[in-house]
Amino acid sequence: MVFEGNYFSSATFDKADFTPDSLICVDQSGIIDRVVSASDSDYQIVKQAAMDNDILKQIPKGSYLLPGFTDLHIHAPQWPQAGLALDKPLNEWLNTYTFPLEAKFKDLQYAKKVYQSLIKELLANGTTTGLFFGSVHTDANLVLAKVCAKLGQRAFIGKVAMDNPDQTPDYYRDESSQVALEETETFILKMQALQEQTNADITSVITPRFVPSCTDETLQGLGDLAKKYDLPIQSHCSESIWEDHYATERFNLRDAEVLNKFGLLTDKSVMAHGTQLSDSDLDLFEKTQTAIAHCPISNAYFGNSVMRVHDAYQKNVKIGLGTDISGGFSPSIYRNMQQAIMSSQMLQDSSQKPARLSASNVFYLATIGGANALHINSGQIKAGFKADLQIVQDQYFELSSNNSDEIFERLVYHTNKENIKQVYVAGNLVHDNRGEK
Amino acid sequence: MVFEGNYFSSATFDKADFTPDSLICVDQSGIIDRVVSASDSDYQIVKQAAMDNDILKQIPKGSYLLPGFTDLHIHAPQWPQAGLALDKPLNEWLNTYTFPLEAKFKDLQYAKKVYQSLIKELLANGTTTGLFFGSVHTDANLVLAKVCAKLGQRAFIGKVAMDNPDQTPDYYRDESSQVALEETETFILKMQALQEQTNADITSVITPRFVPSCTDETLQGLGDLAKKYDLPIQSHCSESIWEDHYATERFNLRDAEVLNKFGLLTDKSVMAHGTQLSDSDLDLFEKTQTAIAHCPISNAYFGNSVMRVHDAYQKNVKIGLGTDISGGFSPSIYRNMQQAIMSSQMLQDSSQKPARLSASNVFYLATIGGANALHINSGQIKAGFKADLQIVQDQYFELSSNNSDEIFERLVYHTNKENIKQVYVAGNLVHDNRGEK
Ligand SMILES: [Zn+2]
Ligand SMILES: [Zn+2]
Repeated sequence: MVFEGNYFSSATFDKADFTPDSLICVDQSGIIDRVVSASDSDYQIVKQAAMDNDILKQIPKGSYLLPGFTDLHIHAPQWPQAGLALDKPLNEWLNTYTFPLEAKFKDLQYAKKVYQSLIKELLANGTTTGLFFGSVHTDANLVLAKVCAKLGQRAFIGKVAMDNPDQTPDYYRDESSQVALEETETFILKMQALQEQTNADITSVITPRFVPSCTDETLQGLGDLAKKYDLPIQSHCSESIWEDHYATERFNLRDAEVLNKFGLLTDKSVMAHGTQLSDSDLDLFEKTQTAIAHCPISNAYFGNSVMRVHDAYQKNVKIGLGTDISGGFSPSIYRNMQQAIMSSQMLQDSSQKPARLSASNVFYLATIGGANALHINSGQIKAGFKADLQIVQDQYFELSSNNSDEIFERLVYHTNKENIKQVYVAGNLVHDNRGEK
Repeated sequence: MVFEGNYFSSATFDKADFTPDSLICVDQSGIIDRVVSASDSDYQIVKQAAMDNDILKQIPKGSYLLPGFTDLHIHAPQWPQAGLALDKPLNEWLNTYTFPLEAKFKDLQYAKKVYQSLIKELLANGTTTGLFFGSVHTDANLVLAKVCAKLGQRAFIGKVAMDNPDQTPDYYRDESSQVALEETETFILKMQALQEQTNADITSVITPRFVPSCTDETLQGLGDLAKKYDLPIQSHCSESIWEDHYATERFNLRDAEVLNKFGLLTDKSVMAHGTQLSDSDLDLFEKTQTAIAHCPISNAYFGNSVMRVHDAYQKNVKIGLGTDISGGFSPSIYRNMQQAIMSSQMLQDSSQKPARLSASNVFYLATIGGANALHINSGQIKAGFKADLQIVQDQYFELSSNNSDEIFERLVYHTNKENIKQVYVAGNLVHDNRGEK
């Protein structure tokens, strides 16, 4: 397949590159094997060959090719309550709404219905890779994996481990540490089998819900499993003042230090939120090469403050973006890019320190940042990278001047689901809204 | 016309009422003359009569009737730059981008093109009434009025007055105070003529850009014109720390006190932003019955802090919502409702004082709040109110339980342009996206 048109791709944290009139050639394995620019001598030859083989896809005028996004934090079973009860305190939100909802996912039919809706929605919003918390249920998590395989989204999925009776309800927890660890290992092995069987791009992830929900044995056992199978790890870290206090009370350590003590901060770890991370925590993240999933919409509700993206980036901590469905109400990474900018501006106003993020900064987080956190060669339009792509329409193209900086800012600020015309994961068309009304 | 279906309408600041299975009957003048509930004895008779006359409009299952929204703060000529250059400081944003753009509106062809795009967009987002800053150009503002008349949006429009040479560029200002006032009066008279000629619901508004851009003579003269013609007034008040400092330096008064001194705070005044209003300023707003246009997206960029909606409401100050195109990038009042909630939550976190707004609160601001600020009988689905309505689809209706509170929160949090199926102003269909792709 060969795409012909204009594209944007992040060059650095501070700059998104615009490249006009190019041919992006995708090989059989879904990798971009070459980008041909208009000035290359064989442009016309390559284009003609693509036309002859009926594999040329021309991007319409006023539309642009962008890398697909990586969403680093999604609670898949919480999708039915996205936007609900967000005015409730965290404790009530979890116990009255969230845990009862997640408990419903032992019903695999229900799981399938919800997960199909969610994955379609994420793809329609330009998210080509997702890092998911499932529920405690091994089988329901496999349903999620199958849905991702079927619909073509690259997925990192964790069976949620939560066995601390003090911090989890009796109707929704792993019965014991042994069960939590056995079920996690079962899930890992079944995911391996499913991966071999379907050849889908799915990976299992070690997933302690967060420090408070797990016993010491489970935290240690999960750290060991991550090492044994060399797997990614996800959890929450310093999401709120309460979470920080909890870690200090129980361990006399910072939340990040607890995770590290149990082998849960590695170069394959992605920790959600981090709004309360101290400078020493950020140093620990840098040292362990742990990544942060920045979820600015969710943080407005539950984070107690704004995550210091600017500081983390300065300290070489890896960062990407997450929707945090359903602590965040929106399934759109675009919406989270916008909120990341707004929240950073508000942080700068309140802290009087440099904090402001630009459109280029947050685009980097959504593409390269997320891909680096998960060690996937995605997020850039460049030879050697996976063809994770979205074709996006600039809805106000007719209205204004069209230098590439303006177009880029319009795409970041104004893209809704309806403007995302097609989405590809590793060269496969996974969403096509041209036919939609 | 008779609508049959379920509707939401704000009952109080704290509560949105859900009413199922009703007939909303609209008379020839565009007023809701009766709401018939399913338990009323003549429900079937009224419905049958509407069917016989082919005037029954049935709201589909999973869709709801809502009042149209009022947007209390729009800079119409800034529409082409919505989302652009928001990372720039206010001064650069105004001088390098905004003033040169507004200056272009002396070209009436350009004005027509932009204004058509803007008004269509606002209607498509469910905004049935708009309060607009135009440009300095009387004729271009009349173009805006004609576009609103043609497309059917209720519009309050101001010729921007700005004549202070210290604070405005030479290529974009009223030449003198005399010119500013004469042109304002000319605009008022031409609007009266246009209103009589077209019978459109358009009103002219006295519009000093903000205190810094006007000379004393102009501020006084505009206050006098407002009184002479009994007209609404709009401006900005205490939008930023800089604006407050400016007022103190020039007048040794607070920004609100300056406006009041020149007769510009009345029960028909709507002042944008107010993020820096002091308690005594809020008391002055309450005393003069001046309303606030709360623009939470814009405030994240330029407001230096979050407007204290909760405090203002407690003090009986009138408040509605504004997009502040283009200090705010989004033309959607839904987006501003969402940001108002998020920003209020962040304010509560940072101030440790009650500040949090609920979905019901912001829905009130968008409907009743905005209508009260402009003294229009709109914003409620109730006998005697104008039939300003939107039919909105709950896109996740199939996914979750459907008690009315959940539906309401989903509509507030998830409605995009594509989910707004039809929009009516005073009973006239002004937007219909069923046919759109
Ligand atoms: Zn989470
Ligand atoms: Zn403004």
